[in-house]
Amino acid sequence: MNALGRHVIAELYGCGFDVLNDVKRVEEIMVKSALEAGAEVREVAFHKFSPQGVSGVVVISESHLAIHTWPELGYAAVDVFTCGDTVDPWDATNYLAKEFGAKYMTAKETKRGVMVEEFAESQAVNL
Amino acid sequence: MNALGRHVIAELYGCGFDVLNDVKRVEEIMVKSALEAGAEVREVAFHKFSPQGVSGVVVISESHLAIHTWPELGYAAVDVFTCGDTVDPWDATNYLAKEFGAKYMTAKETKRGVMVEEFAESQAVNL
Repeated sequence: MNALGRHVIAELYGCGFDVLNDVKRVEEIMVKSALEAGAEVREVAFHKFSPQGVSGVVVISESHLAIHTWPELGYAAVDVFTCGDTVDPWDATNYLAKEFGAKYMTAKETKRGVMVEEFAESQAVNL
Repeated sequence: MNALGRHVIAELYGCGFDVLNDVKRVEEIMVKSALEAGAEVREVAFHKFSPQGVSGVVVISESHLAIHTWPELGYAAVDVFTCGDTVDPWDATNYLAKEFGAKYMTAKETKRGVMVEEFAESQAVNL
């Protein structure tokens, strides 16, 4: 299957409240996970919610990493999208799980930008 | 299934080169799609690649919208993640498909943050 990219959607459960609620620390971990995976960071945008929770994205040359945290539930929704062959999205995902102290994770990978015309058309929603 | 959010992953094919390569226009359409769906915009981060292509993210109170474009292929990878019940991610996705002039789209929705303990544990990757 000829795809342009790989998109890992991961649920991190059992993380610590404090780390998930610290916008600076979340941003630092997200940027480091991108760098650890060999990605090139282009833009960052993070936001702290009141009374708790952080949302943020790191735009990389190879696509993006995003996170949304629910500190009160010990939960973080993470997705890591990479195009090209140089960066493995699982490297960043696993790094995030470790740094956020996740007790368990569910995750799956979706291929993005499948360029086989027949495949795309067979599943197409006509617009 | 008790989920915190809905994440639509969409592939837009057959879009116009010019719109996909115009970072200002892409940002404008992304922000408008969030507003059209009733979301509250918090942060934006967009990047133009050379010789072509745009990546960008809109962080909303309800989570995020992200896009990566390959103008030379007429393709855009879009994902729209919303939590809560007030914003429907398909409203934003369909708006994006229309505004980028997509000839066809493949898309699927994934539930995020399923908080049924047994479900999560049964699928867990032990860390």
